[in-house]
Amino acid sequence: MLDTIETPALILDEHRLDANIKKMRMRLSTAGVEFRPHLKTCKSLDIANRILPPTEGSKITVSTLAEAEYFLKGGYRDILYAVSIAPNKLKRVKALQEAGANMTLLLDTLVAAKQISEAGQEMGTTFPCFIEIDCDGKRAGLKPEDTAVLEIAKRLDEASGVSLSGVMTHSGGSYYCKNIDEIYDVAEQERLAIIQAAAAIRKQGIICSVVSAGSTPTATYTRSTDSITEIRAGVYVFQDMVMQALGVCQTDDIAISVLSTVISHNSAHNRLLIDAGSLALSADPGLKNEKGQTHFGQVCEREDAKVLEGLFVSSTNQEHGLISLAGTNYSLNDFPIGSQLRILPNHACITAAAYPGYHIISSETGDVSAYWPRHNGW
Amino acid sequence: MLDTIETPALILDEHRLDANIKKMRMRLSTAGVEFRPHLKTCKSLDIANRILPPTEGSKITVSTLAEAEYFLKGGYRDILYAVSIAPNKLKRVKALQEAGANMTLLLDTLVAAKQISEAGQEMGTTFPCFIEIDCDGKRAGLKPEDTAVLEIAKRLDEASGVSLSGVMTHSGGSYYCKNIDEIYDVAEQERLAIIQAAAAIRKQGIICSVVSAGSTPTATYTRSTDSITEIRAGVYVFQDMVMQALGVCQTDDIAISVLSTVISHNSAHNRLLIDAGSLALSADPGLKNEKGQTHFGQVCEREDAKVLEGLFVSSTNQEHGLISLAGTNYSLNDFPIGSQLRILPNHACITAAAYPGYHIISSETGDVSAYWPRHNGW
Repeated sequence: MLDTIETPALILDEHRLDANIKKMRMRLSTAGVEFRPHLKTCKSLDIANRILPPTEGSKITVSTLAEAEYFLKGGYRDILYAVSIAPNKLKRVKALQEAGANMTLLLDTLVAAKQISEAGQEMGTTFPCFIEIDCDGKRAGLKPEDTAVLEIAKRLDEASGVSLSGVMTHSGGSYYCKNIDEIYDVAEQERLAIIQAAAAIRKQGIICSVVSAGSTPTATYTRSTDSITEIRAGVYVFQDMVMQALGVCQTDDIAISVLSTVISHNSAHNRLLIDAGSLALSADPGLKNEKGQTHFGQVCEREDAKVLEGLFVSSTNQEHGLISLAGTNYSLNDFPIGSQLRILPNHACITAAAYPGYHIISSETGDVSAYWPRHNGW
Repeated sequence: MLDTIETPALILDEHRLDANIKKMRMRLSTAGVEFRPHLKTCKSLDIANRILPPTEGSKITVSTLAEAEYFLKGGYRDILYAVSIAPNKLKRVKALQEAGANMTLLLDTLVAAKQISEAGQEMGTTFPCFIEIDCDGKRAGLKPEDTAVLEIAKRLDEASGVSLSGVMTHSGGSYYCKNIDEIYDVAEQERLAIIQAAAAIRKQGIICSVVSAGSTPTATYTRSTDSITEIRAGVYVFQDMVMQALGVCQTDDIAISVLSTVISHNSAHNRLLIDAGSLALSADPGLKNEKGQTHFGQVCEREDAKVLEGLFVSSTNQEHGLISLAGTNYSLNDFPIGSQLRILPNHACITAAAYPGYHIISSETGDVSAYWPRHNGW
């Protein structure tokens, strides 16, 4: 029963989770492309096990070495650490290898290729690597036509202590799309960039086995996965208000919410106060709406997370969330002090990281049935 | 040695911490007003013990019941939980009382006064309360002239299960000041609001012992504390880029920083990538500068956190921080891959909450000397 849970708390709707997982699985299965889910969103073995079983062929993506260690213990061995590796983390990668992990690292500079190669030689190991390709200028990677791609590929291919496993890209730009057509275009741009890089490397006679692309928006709306060998996506398991704003999901698909309690009515300003603030929801203002406004989460009823249209967390302090009722059809009396609300977060990955685990609403009983831990930190 | 710490990591400079603590202590001692530090920023007994010893008269402020439980175990008994209490948390407050805490709760509605009174009667205890007063419309509380203040005071005074300990206000508006003169004005506005409320209650023949005000800006720049009995402040122990922008501190006073590693150079966009992103720094964009720009932290050299003027974390993803060098005097070669940087955060309270503890740079040796745990969560 939700009303027995102390607030703020992280709630996960098993039914919506399973539906999101199933939809993506079917989509990629139809596309005939392998899946390497990004587990940085869930950081949970219970959830990972629903996405794919920890069998020999299962491939996963992580954003921290802490996740790699945790998921390895859970039986996942083929692990891509999808952030350019800092040289001071290589000892820990070696330890992961010794514990049975088939780790793949990421890099996009010749300097890093040299550093990793030297470290691999010193440590008596080989670090398989992906070269990161930039498909939209939003974050990391080399443009596919950059000659440095070939220099790095050559170095990884020839030097000891290191090897080339493939190329990868992430379309961060998909988060800035204005409509679904744009996402389709960005997905194609992502695909063309990564296959261009792979082709250039192969033209040098160098084997480039893996061609990895993906983000939740582009994995959802893609015209073709031709010549891509694997797709990555993470936030789709939960979805969030950013994905909803992009048209990647409906509000009713969002599986995660923050349970909070109404702690005060401010009549003078016609607003509610709840006990979920910047720490419980995150300080992430999400995407601007067409009026240039932002918010800190969609307010929903406690039961079934029924969306209260037009009602958002308008601002936050550390432990206070303010919900302005001005300009809405709601009045303070609709939300008695002590009653509870659920808030759909802007960025599921960031909000979830504030909690040690999930209270699970069972798809069978509709009631809180379990608590699944998360593995936070670095 | 900082270079042996895996990044991202939270670093605390003991020398700056002690200086910040001492400055505030002297300021309030000169003003002749009692101090009730807000420990929501540090969430650390090691730091609390430097602010004030856990003796009988020591008063503290907390933002979660988890903090109350933690600091009680550390010997602090006089605890203000400075967020309007949710009725479902009263059992936990009762348990704190039974464990020896002298808890003070906060409320600003007659409904809450009734709820707390009834709960106190049912549980066979008395919950002492402050009435929250709104001095600037930014968050919670009743305006001092609101007749509801007197109704609540009367209820707390007369009903069993509950009692009136005093009034409190927090000038959230001080975070929006444009210069120090404005902070002085806001501090006076804060003082006048709270003493007006106390006077109105006393005029009804009701005892209102405590008159509590404060925020780091107004505790720093105040013309008078006349008729105020206690001042609260929290973030001053660390300071941060928001406090620096307000003129409350200098950049060199900021005691807390995130140690990060340069993980890539992006020549095409002339930017660095570091391994500190939205989770390590928080997604809080801080205050806009005069050009309307925001950032995610001030970049500093690793040693002594020497400020790199004009260099900021320009954007973040979950585990990536992007530092644009465009328009600066720096070049990528100034920051080799694998080298480390320290980032001064926008909001110390929010950034620190992502970490289980602090790596302490000793004021004596200048080297990492200790690790102090934090008590996060709810």
